[in-house]
Amino acid sequence: MSSETVTVGAYLLERLRQLGVKSLFGVPGDFNLGFLDLVEDHPDIDWVGNCNELNAAYAADGYARVNKKSIGAILTTFGVGELSAINGIAGSFSEMVPIVHIAGVPSVSQQKNKPMLHHTLGDGRFDAYLKASQQFTISQADIKDNITAGSEIDRVLTDCITSARPVYIMLPTDIAYAKTSSAALSTPLKPTAPEVDTAVQGFVLDEIEKLVEAAGSEVIILVDACAIRHGVEEETWELIKRTGFPVYSAPMGKTAVPEGYEKYGGIYVGSLSHPEIKEKVESAKLILAVGSLKSDFNTGNFTYRIPQVSTVELHSDHTRVQYALYPNVGFKELLPKLTARLHPLESPSGAVSVPPFVANVPAPADDPLGADVISQLWFWPRLGKFFEPEDVIVTETGTSSFGALAIPLPRDSIYVSQILWGSIGYATGSMLGAALAQREIGLKGRTILFTGDGSLQLTVQELSTVMRKGLNPIIFVLNNSGYTIERHLHGRERKYNDIVNWKWTSLLDVLAPADLNPPPKSYTVHTKNELDALLKDESFAHAKGIQLVEVMMDKYDAPLALLRQAELSGKTNKYVGDYV
Amino acid sequence: MSSETVTVGAYLLERLRQLGVKSLFGVPGDFNLGFLDLVEDHPDIDWVGNCNELNAAYAADGYARVNKKSIGAILTTFGVGELSAINGIAGSFSEMVPIVHIAGVPSVSQQKNKPMLHHTLGDGRFDAYLKASQQFTISQADIKDNITAGSEIDRVLTDCITSARPVYIMLPTDIAYAKTSSAALSTPLKPTAPEVDTAVQGFVLDEIEKLVEAAGSEVIILVDACAIRHGVEEETWELIKRTGFPVYSAPMGKTAVPEGYEKYGGIYVGSLSHPEIKEKVESAKLILAVGSLKSDFNTGNFTYRIPQVSTVELHSDHTRVQYALYPNVGFKELLPKLTARLHPLESPSGAVSVPPFVANVPAPADDPLGADVISQLWFWPRLGKFFEPEDVIVTETGTSSFGALAIPLPRDSIYVSQILWGSIGYATGSMLGAALAQREIGLKGRTILFTGDGSLQLTVQELSTVMRKGLNPIIFVLNNSGYTIERHLHGRERKYNDIVNWKWTSLLDVLAPADLNPPPKSYTVHTKNELDALLKDESFAHAKGIQLVEVMMDKYDAPLALLRQAELSGKTNKYVGDYV
Repeated sequence: MSSETVTVGAYLLERLRQLGVKSLFGVPGDFNLGFLDLVEDHPDIDWVGNCNELNAAYAADGYARVNKKSIGAILTTFGVGELSAINGIAGSFSEMVPIVHIAGVPSVSQQKNKPMLHHTLGDGRFDAYLKASQQFTISQADIKDNITAGSEIDRVLTDCITSARPVYIMLPTDIAYAKTSSAALSTPLKPTAPEVDTAVQGFVLDEIEKLVEAAGSEVIILVDACAIRHGVEEETWELIKRTGFPVYSAPMGKTAVPEGYEKYGGIYVGSLSHPEIKEKVESAKLILAVGSLKSDFNTGNFTYRIPQVSTVELHSDHTRVQYALYPNVGFKELLPKLTARLHPLESPSGAVSVPPFVANVPAPADDPLGADVISQLWFWPRLGKFFEPEDVIVTETGTSSFGALAIPLPRDSIYVSQILWGSIGYATGSMLGAALAQREIGLKGRTILFTGDGSLQLTVQELSTVMRKGLNPIIFVLNNSGYTIERHLHGRERKYNDIVNWKWTSLLDVLAPADLNPPPKSYTVHTKNELDALLKDESFAHAKGIQLVEVMMDKYDAPLALLRQAELSGKTNKYVGDYV
Repeated sequence: MSSETVTVGAYLLERLRQLGVKSLFGVPGDFNLGFLDLVEDHPDIDWVGNCNELNAAYAADGYARVNKKSIGAILTTFGVGELSAINGIAGSFSEMVPIVHIAGVPSVSQQKNKPMLHHTLGDGRFDAYLKASQQFTISQADIKDNITAGSEIDRVLTDCITSARPVYIMLPTDIAYAKTSSAALSTPLKPTAPEVDTAVQGFVLDEIEKLVEAAGSEVIILVDACAIRHGVEEETWELIKRTGFPVYSAPMGKTAVPEGYEKYGGIYVGSLSHPEIKEKVESAKLILAVGSLKSDFNTGNFTYRIPQVSTVELHSDHTRVQYALYPNVGFKELLPKLTARLHPLESPSGAVSVPPFVANVPAPADDPLGADVISQLWFWPRLGKFFEPEDVIVTETGTSSFGALAIPLPRDSIYVSQILWGSIGYATGSMLGAALAQREIGLKGRTILFTGDGSLQLTVQELSTVMRKGLNPIIFVLNNSGYTIERHLHGRERKYNDIVNWKWTSLLDVLAPADLNPPPKSYTVHTKNELDALLKDESFAHAKGIQLVEVMMDKYDAPLALLRQAELSGKTNKYVGDYV
C-alpha cells in the first residue's frame, strides 16, 4: 500500500467535503458510531442528528435541492435505520435528487460468518437490505475490503452526481477505520460526461434550427424538472434571454426560471392550466421543452395537448426532435451551442408580448366563502405578496403544493415540493435540510413551510431538530381538519380522513431546547384581517426566531387546480368493479 | 362465476374477521380509499388511522403479540405508504410476528400500461415495491384479477398463520370492488400442519425419554421466543407442570411461563445471567429447550455454555436431539406426546427446589448513586412491585428492555419487547396495538410503556392515536439525556448521543383531542420518594385516563445486564482497523 493512507471513513468524508457537503443527516446506531466519531471531529462537516431516519432522508433531499451544486448525505445504521429511511430515498430516486445513503453495517467477518446479530432478520440473510436498496438507488457499494474501498466510494459518488439519483454505501464497522490509499483524493470527482459525437450533435442543431425558422415567431420554451435536477438552469436561462422566446414552466420546473421575468408566462399543467396559458402553449408552432417529466400531477393528469410534431425535447442524455430520437445528445452540451445558433436569428419572438404571470389578491367582499374566512382563493395570492427574493418555499403535497403553483415567486427564490413522489410528511423534514442549505450558501431570504394539519403529524418531531440547529423558518400549518386532498379524491365525509386536532400553538414550546433564544413564537389566525396584519408586521416577517402560524381554513376548501386534479384522478382510481 | 359472490375487498375483510382481527392499522392514501370505505362500514373491524405508516406497522406487531390467537393487519398506499412501513414489517419478520400488510395499488390496467403516476419511481417499474417487500415477507399476493383473488388471499394468509411471519397483499383499486366467489369463505383458514411421520416421531420420543431418564433429577426446561410465536405456550406449560422440571426463560421467552411459578428460576442469558441462574442452567445434565432463538442479545452475546450433547431442542418444524436433526418433527404435535410420556416417570425433579426468581428493592441508603436519585438498580425492582396480573408491559430497546428482564412479572401479564430486531421507536407504536388488543381480549390489567427520551422522539406522534382511541396506558419516559445505551456501546461523551430535552409533561396536552375525558395527566419525578409515593397512589395506579411519568435519571446509569452486553458488543464492533 502507498505510504499516503487515510482511514476509509476519512476518505469518504473528504469526498463528501469536496462535493460541497457541509451537513450530514441521520441517526446514530451501534454499527455507525465509530464512523460518527470521525464526523463529529471533522472541521467542515456538521452532524445533524435527526429524530428519525425517514425525516433524515427527507432533510437530505431538501438540502440537495437548495444546495444545488452539492448532494445530500444521510447516515443510518444496519437494517432498522436504513429501512426506516427507504421511502425518503425512493422519493429522491423518483424526483431525481442526488443523495448518498451510507449505512453502517456489521464487520466484514460478521457478514461472512453471519451470526444472529440484533438488527438482522434472524435467518442469516445479511444482503436483504442491500437487495431492497437496489430498487431505489442507482448504484451501490458493498464495501468488503479497504483496498478497493476508495474506488468503490468514487464509483458510486460519480454515479450519484452524474445521474442526480441516490446511491448506497455499506460501510462495515471495521472498514471505517481501516487504512486505504489517499492518492485518488487529489483528483476531485466529476460527473461522467457522455461522449459527444459532434457530427450527430451538429445534425440535431441543424434540425432544431430549421424547425425554429419555420415556426417563425411562434416558439415557446417549456422548462421542467430535469432542467433543475441536472443542473442546466444557467444554460436554459441563457437560451431564454438570448432568444427572447416566451417561457413557461411545468409544476416541477417552478423557479427554474425567474417568475418575474417579463417573458415568463406561468405554469403549464395541461387542462388544469389557466385558460390563457393553456391556449398560448398549446397553439405554439414549436415548443422547446427542456427537461420534461411527464408525470400525472405534473401534466394535469396527462392532459398535455402538445403535438409531438411541434415539439423538441431536450433531456440530460438524449434529444427528441419531433418523432426522431437522438441518444447520447444531452442538454448540458447542446444548450450553449443551441443558444449560439439561435441568438443571431434576431427572432421575431423577441417582440412578442407574453400575458404576465400575476396573482392578484381578490377583494374579500367577492370571496364566495365570505369576507372574513381565510379561503384558499385568497390565501395564496396574499402570501405571494409576502414572499421576497432568495426565500426558500417548501410546500407539502396537498392543498399547499397545488395552491402555491399559481403564485409567481420572487427572483432567486427556490421552490421545493414533491410533485411526482408526493409522500405526505416530506415537506417538514425537507424544510430542515432546505433551511440548513440556505444558510450555508448564504441566501438572504426566509425558509417558509406550508403544510397541513394532517401531513405535519407524520414527521412533526423534526421541528425539534430545526430549533436545535438555530434555524428560523416560518411554518404555516393549514388547519383544515384532516386530509383535505383525500376528501376531494374519495371519501368526502369519511371518518378515515379525520385526524386529531392538536394544540398547534403549543407544539414548538414542547419540542424546543430549553435555552432557545429567541424562544419560538406561535399564532392562530382565523380571518383574512388577522393574517393580513400578521404578514405586514415587520417583527413577524423578519423575525430572528422560529414561528408557527396556524391558519384556520374550511375543511372542504381547496385550490381550483386540486379540485380539477382530484376530479381527473378520481375517474382513474375508480372503485367500482367491472369484473362481475 | 358462482352465484354467491362478494367484492374482493369484502372477501379479504371477512378472512381477517375470521382470523380474529378487530383493528386494522394504517394511513389512508388515494390507492386505498375505496377499500377503506368497506373497512369503515364493516361492523366488526375498526379502522385505526395512524399518524404515519411506520407507527402503524409497529402497532400491528404489538397487536399480534397480545392478541395471540389472531394476527396484525396494516393497510398502506402504493409506494410512499408501504415503504414507510417496511422497517416495521422487517421487524415482524425478524421477531416472527404474524402480520398481513395490505398495500392499495394502482388498477390492473395502470400496472400494465405503466403511466407515470404519482407515487411511482418515474421509470415505469411498478414492481419495485413488491421486490423490496419480498425481502421482508414470507409470502406475497400480487393480485391481478378477481377470479383468483380469493385463493391468493387465502394462500398468503395461510402462510402468515403457519409461519408466524408477515405477508404482503397488493390490492389494486379496481379489484377491491370486483366480485369474486364467496364459496371458500365457509371454510375458515387453518395453519398448514406438517405431515407427521409417526414412526419418526415415536423414535424421537424414545430418544428424548432415554436422555431424560439418564439425566435423573437434573433436567431443566428452557423456554424461548418461538414457544410464544408459534403458539405452544399451553403445551409447554403442561409439560412444565406435569414433569415438575425447573424452568428458565430466555429474554425473548419472558412471560411464556408464569414468572411467579414456584419452579421458575428466571432469565437465562448466557454470561449476563445472575450467577445462580447461570450455574443452575449450565450444570444441568439435560436441557429441554423449547423454541430457542439464539440471537446476540438473547444469549448474552453468544455466551451460552450449554453443550449440545446435553440439549434437546424443540422447534416449530424440527427437533434436535443432541447432535441429531429430525426435520418435520414439530413441537405443536410433539409436546403433548412428550408430556404424556414423561408424566408417569414420577420425575425426581419434582422434589428439586429452584432458587426463587425475585427482585428485591434495594434499600435507598445502599444505593451507590445516593439515597434520593432514581437509579436503574432501584427503579426496576420497585416497578416490579407495581405490576399486576394481566398487565401488558412494553419495553423499548435500551435501558428499559435490559432493566425489565431481571424483574419477575405477575401471572397472565404479557411482555412485549424487540430483543432481536431492536428498532428504537418500536415500543411506542407497539404499545398502541398492544393496548387495543388488551382491551379487545378483555385482559384486566394496565398497559405500561417504558421508553427513553431518545427513543420516544422517533415515533412520538402515535401517542395522539392512543388518546384518540380512548386508551389509558401509563407511559414511563426514562429521561437520561439522550441515547444512554449507545453511550455505553461507543461515544460516551459524544454529542451525537445528545438530544433535545423536550417538555415531556406538556406533550400529551398538545397531542390530545380537545374533548378527551379524563384529560391526560403528566408527572415528573426526581427522587425515589416521589416515584414511590406516585406508585402507591391508587388514583395513579388505576386511573381512567392516560398518564405520562417523566423519570429523571442519570445520563450514564444503566442496568447491569446492559453494561455487560455493551462491553461484549463493543468488542465485536471494534472501530480500529487491522488492515494497515
